Amino acid sequence: MPKVRLSLAQINPTVGDISANTAEILSFCKAAAAEGTDVVVFGEMTITGYPIEDLATRESFVTRAHSAVNELAQKLVELGLGDLMVVIGHPALASPEARNGWAIAQNCASVILGGKVIGKYAKHHLPNYSVFDEYRNFVPGNELLVVERLGLKFAIVICEDIWQTGGPVAEISKHDADVTLVLNGSPFEVDKDDRRLELVRELALKHSTTTAYVNLVGGQDDLVFDGDSIVVDASGQLVGRSYQFEEDLLSVDIEDRSVSLSSAHPLVKKDDTWQIWNALVLGLRDYVKKNGFKSVVLGLSGGIDSAVCAVIAADAIGAENVYGISMPSVYSSDHSKSDAQDLAERIGCHYYTVPIEPMVESFEQELKFSGLASENLQARVRGVVLMGLSNQFGHLTLTTGNKTELAVGYSTIYGDSVGGFAPIKDVEKTLVWELAKWRNLQAESDGQIAPIPENSISKPPSAELRPGQVDQDSLPEYDVLDAILEMYVGQRASAGSIVAAGFDAETVNRIAALVDRAEWKRRQGAIGPKITGMAFGRDRRLPITNKYKE
Amino acid sequence: MPKVRLSLAQINPTVGDISANTAEILSFCKAAAAEGTDVVVFGEMTITGYPIEDLATRESFVTRAHSAVNELAQKLVELGLGDLMVVIGHPALASPEARNGWAIAQNCASVILGGKVIGKYAKHHLPNYSVFDEYRNFVPGNELLVVERLGLKFAIVICEDIWQTGGPVAEISKHDADVTLVLNGSPFEVDKDDRRLELVRELALKHSTTTAYVNLVGGQDDLVFDGDSIVVDASGQLVGRSYQFEEDLLSVDIEDRSVSLSSAHPLVKKDDTWQIWNALVLGLRDYVKKNGFKSVVLGLSGGIDSAVCAVIAADAIGAENVYGISMPSVYSSDHSKSDAQDLAERIGCHYYTVPIEPMVESFEQELKFSGLASENLQARVRGVVLMGLSNQFGHLTLTTGNKTELAVGYSTIYGDSVGGFAPIKDVEKTLVWELAKWRNLQAESDGQIAPIPENSISKPPSAELRPGQVDQDSLPEYDVLDAILEMYVGQRASAGSIVAAGFDAETVNRIAALVDRAEWKRRQGAIGPKITGMAFGRDRRLPITNKYKE
Repeated sequence: MPKVRLSLAQINPTVGDISANTAEILSFCKAAAAEGTDVVVFGEMTITGYPIEDLATRESFVTRAHSAVNELAQKLVELGLGDLMVVIGHPALASPEARNGWAIAQNCASVILGGKVIGKYAKHHLPNYSVFDEYRNFVPGNELLVVERLGLKFAIVICEDIWQTGGPVAEISKHDADVTLVLNGSPFEVDKDDRRLELVRELALKHSTTTAYVNLVGGQDDLVFDGDSIVVDASGQLVGRSYQFEEDLLSVDIEDRSVSLSSAHPLVKKDDTWQIWNALVLGLRDYVKKNGFKSVVLGLSGGIDSAVCAVIAADAIGAENVYGISMPSVYSSDHSKSDAQDLAERIGCHYYTVPIEPMVESFEQELKFSGLASENLQARVRGVVLMGLSNQFGHLTLTTGNKTELAVGYSTIYGDSVGGFAPIKDVEKTLVWELAKWRNLQAESDGQIAPIPENSISKPPSAELRPGQVDQDSLPEYDVLDAILEMYVGQRASAGSIVAAGFDAETVNRIAALVDRAEWKRRQGAIGPKITGMAFGRDRRLPITNKYKE
Repeated sequence: MPKVRLSLAQINPTVGDISANTAEILSFCKAAAAEGTDVVVFGEMTITGYPIEDLATRESFVTRAHSAVNELAQKLVELGLGDLMVVIGHPALASPEARNGWAIAQNCASVILGGKVIGKYAKHHLPNYSVFDEYRNFVPGNELLVVERLGLKFAIVICEDIWQTGGPVAEISKHDADVTLVLNGSPFEVDKDDRRLELVRELALKHSTTTAYVNLVGGQDDLVFDGDSIVVDASGQLVGRSYQFEEDLLSVDIEDRSVSLSSAHPLVKKDDTWQIWNALVLGLRDYVKKNGFKSVVLGLSGGIDSAVCAVIAADAIGAENVYGISMPSVYSSDHSKSDAQDLAERIGCHYYTVPIEPMVESFEQELKFSGLASENLQARVRGVVLMGLSNQFGHLTLTTGNKTELAVGYSTIYGDSVGGFAPIKDVEKTLVWELAKWRNLQAESDGQIAPIPENSISKPPSAELRPGQVDQDSLPEYDVLDAILEMYVGQRASAGSIVAAGFDAETVNRIAALVDRAEWKRRQGAIGPKITGMAFGRDRRLPITNKYKE
C-alpha cells in the first residue's frame, strides 16, 4: 500500500467573507500540494467562517456559499491540483421536504476531487446549548460519508457528532474506515483541549481508525477558535498537534496502519495561563482586524483592569495602535495618574490626559446630582470622552470591565462600560491579577520590561468615584466573591446550596441579588472573548424581569 | 349527561415570582368556583411565568416550581375547592435518563383534583426559532394526556404542539376526547391572532373535539402576551373569546356536544392599530411594574418618536409618573421646544428643560470635536442627563428610537439610545406616524384633547444635531426605506432580490450596508416589545463580525 500524506489545514476564515476565505483555502491547498500532500482537510464551515448564526436562514447566503464550493473545485483544477482531495466545511440548502421552519440549511462537509464534489456529509448532532444555536439554524443529516482514495477509506463527520452518542459516528467501524476526518469549529475554553483529545482517542480506539481532528483558528465576536488540531492513530496514540492560536498546516504520512508526523510539531501544549492570554490577544486582534479598525482607545485608570487590557491590546495590534487616556477627577489619587502614565511608558502606547472636572462641573451646576447619580456622572463623562475620541479618530473603544464586575453590576452603564469590545469580559478579578503577574514574569524572562506597574497589581482596587472609596467597602474580598460567583453563575447553584457549602448567608444572598439585578446592564454590554464554560452573553440567557430569589 | 362548566383563566404571571403567581392562580380558582365552574385551565408555565429561559437549566428552580404545584393542590383542598379540576402549566425535571446536556426540565401541564396531581403532560414540540429557545431548555415529552371528569374526556396539549404536525396531538381523535385543552404562552404579533383561531378550528374539526385555547397575558421583557383565549366547538364554531391585553375569566357550558358562553364576551376583536397600541402600552406597563419602578423619564425633542413614547407611557402608568425632559442645544429649532412643551401640557406629564449647551461646551473646549463626533456629543450629553435623573430619582429611562432608526443605525450609541426599555423598538417609522394619528383620533372621538401636537406629526423629521439637518439628507423617504427594510430584515431577502423587486440599486446596497454595520449598536440596545414577526433582538441573531454583502 502506498504512503498517503494527509494535511490538516487550520485556517482563520472571516464570517461572510466567502471570497477571501476561498483564497486562503486555495493558498493552503497549494502549500499542501507543494509538500506532497494527497488529502487536505479544513475545519467546519471554513468557506463561510463560523458560526454564521441566522445567516443560515437566508437562502441567498446559503446558495452563494454552496456555489463557492463548486467554484473552488474548478479553481483547484485550473491550478493543476485536481488530484488533491480537499475536504471542506460549508452550509448547503436542505431538501425542501426536510426544511423545518426557520432551519433551511445543513452544516456540511464536501469532498472535492478532480474538479468535482464527490461526496457531501451533513452534520447529524446539532449543538443547541451554551453559545450554540444549531438546532435553530440547521437541519440534521443522518448518513455517514465514506470515500476511498489511494487505497484508504476516509469517513467524514463534523464536530458535535463525536461529542454525542449515536448517529453516523456509530457506523464508522462497520465501514472499516482507515481514517476518520472530523471537521470542527470548537471554541476555546480553559481545559477543553484535554476533553477534545480524550474524545478523539476514544473514537480512534473504538472504531480502530486513524483520526484527524481539524479545528478552526481565530476570533469571531465572542468566540476564539484556538486551533490545536490533532491526529491520533488507530491505537489511540497522539501523533501530531497543530500550534494553538495561529494558522498552521500539520501533515502526517499514513502507511498501512502506521501514522507518522511529516514535519516537526511539539506534542505538548503550553500552560493554561499562556493559553488564556493568547486567547484574549487573538480574540481582540481578530475583532479589530475583521471589523476594519486600525487602532483602539481605552481609559487608563492606573488600576489593574485597564492595565491588563492595554497590554492585551498592545500584544494584539502593537502599542503604536493603542491610545490610552487618563481621565482624572477630583477623587483620583496621585497614584492613579502616575500608574497610568507608568504603564503607557512601559508598553509604549499613546497617552493623553483629559481631566474631567470641567465637564463634571458643568453637569453638576445644572443638575445638582448626589450619591450614586454623582458617582455615575464621573464614569459617564469619561464614556463621552472615549466615544468622542472613537468617533473623531476611528478608534475602536475598549471597555475594561472584568467578569466579576459584570456579574455584580459594579460598573456604570454608558460610563466605564462604553465600547465595542470587552477584552477581559470573561476573566474574573482574581484571574486578572494572575494574568498580570504572569505577563510581567514572561516579559522579565524574555529580558523585557515588565509591562504592568507593580503598584497597579498590589494596591487595593478602587473605582475612585468618591473620596477614599475601595471596592471592598461594598463587596467581599475578591477570592470569596469569585468563589461564590463560580457557584452561582458558573455552576447554576442555588443561593441555598452555596450557603450550605460554607459561605456566609447574608453575603451569598446579597451577591445573588446583585447578579440578578445587573442582568439589564449585562444585556447592553459589549461582547468579549469567552474563555470559560459559562461566559456572560450567549452562554447564559436569563430574563431581565425575574423575581426568583433562591 | 350533566352540564359541565369550563373556565379559561387568562392571567398575568411574573417570571420567577412563584408565590405571587400561585396566589393569583388561587384567586382565579376561587372566582371560577364561585360561578359554578367544574374545570379551570390556565396558560403555559403559569406557575413560573414564561419564558423562563435558562432558569429551566437550574435544578433548584425547577424543583421549587414543581413543588409549588403540589402546594397548590393542597391549598385548593384547604379552600374547599378539592372538586374543582385545575389544569396548570409549570416546569418539572425530566427523568435522569431523558436529560440531554443543558436540558434537564420539561414544559409541563398538571391536572389537579382532590388535592392531588392526577395527570401530567409534557410538551412535545419545542419551538426553537424566532424568540424561542425551547430545544435548548427542555426535554420533549411524547405522550398525550387524557383525563375523565364528569363524563367528559379532556385531552391536554401545550402551545407549539398544535402548530406542528405529528406528536401527541395526532392521537386526540383515537382517544375520543370531548374537549381538548391547549395551554399557551403565545406572544403578540400583528395578525397572529387569526392564525391561532385558524389552527384551533382545524384541530377541533379534525379531531371532532371542543377546543379551549388559553393564553397568558402580560409583558415579559420583549414579549407581550395578548391573551385572546378562545373556545371553538367540535364543529369549528368560535364560541367564546377572552379580552385582549387584560386578565380575564372566560367560561363556557358544555352539554353533550353543545357549547355555550356562560357570560357575555364579544367574539370580534378590535382592529390592528388598537392591538398594536395596547401591546406597546402593556409591554411598557409590565416592564415598569414587574421590575419595581414607579416612574419613567425620557427626552422630549418635539419630534414624533418621543411624543408617541410619552403618550404610551402616560397610557401605561399615568402621566403623573412620566417625566419629560427637553434638552435643547444650539441647533434646536424653536418648534422643537414648543412642540415638546405642548405635548407635555396636552398629556399632563412632568416637564423640565435642561439646556445642554454648557455641558457640550465644556467637552468642546477640552476636545475640539468636529463632524460626527460633535453631533454624537450632543446626543451623549443628553444621555448623561437622563441617566443622572434616573439614578437620582429612580425613574426608568425610556429610549425613544423606532425600528427604522435601529435598523440603519441612525442613532447615537450611549446617547439617545440610553435606557432600560425602548417602547417603540419594533415600530417602523411609518407606523409611528400611523399610531400617532390613530391615538389622536381616539382621543378626539372620546371627547379628549388629542395628545400629540399636530406639528410633531407633520414636520419633517430631524435629529437636529447640525444646522438645518433633516433625516432625508442621508436617508431615502421613510415609505421607501421601510419597504426596503421589510424585505431585507423582515423577509431576509438579498439586496439583489430587493433591487429586482424594483428599488434603486444604490439605495438598496447603501441601506443593507447600514443595517449590517449597525449590528454592534443593536446588540447593546435596550429591549422593547416585539409586535412583528421579525423584531430586533432574539428574533434576529446575526454575527457582528460579518463581511457578507449581497
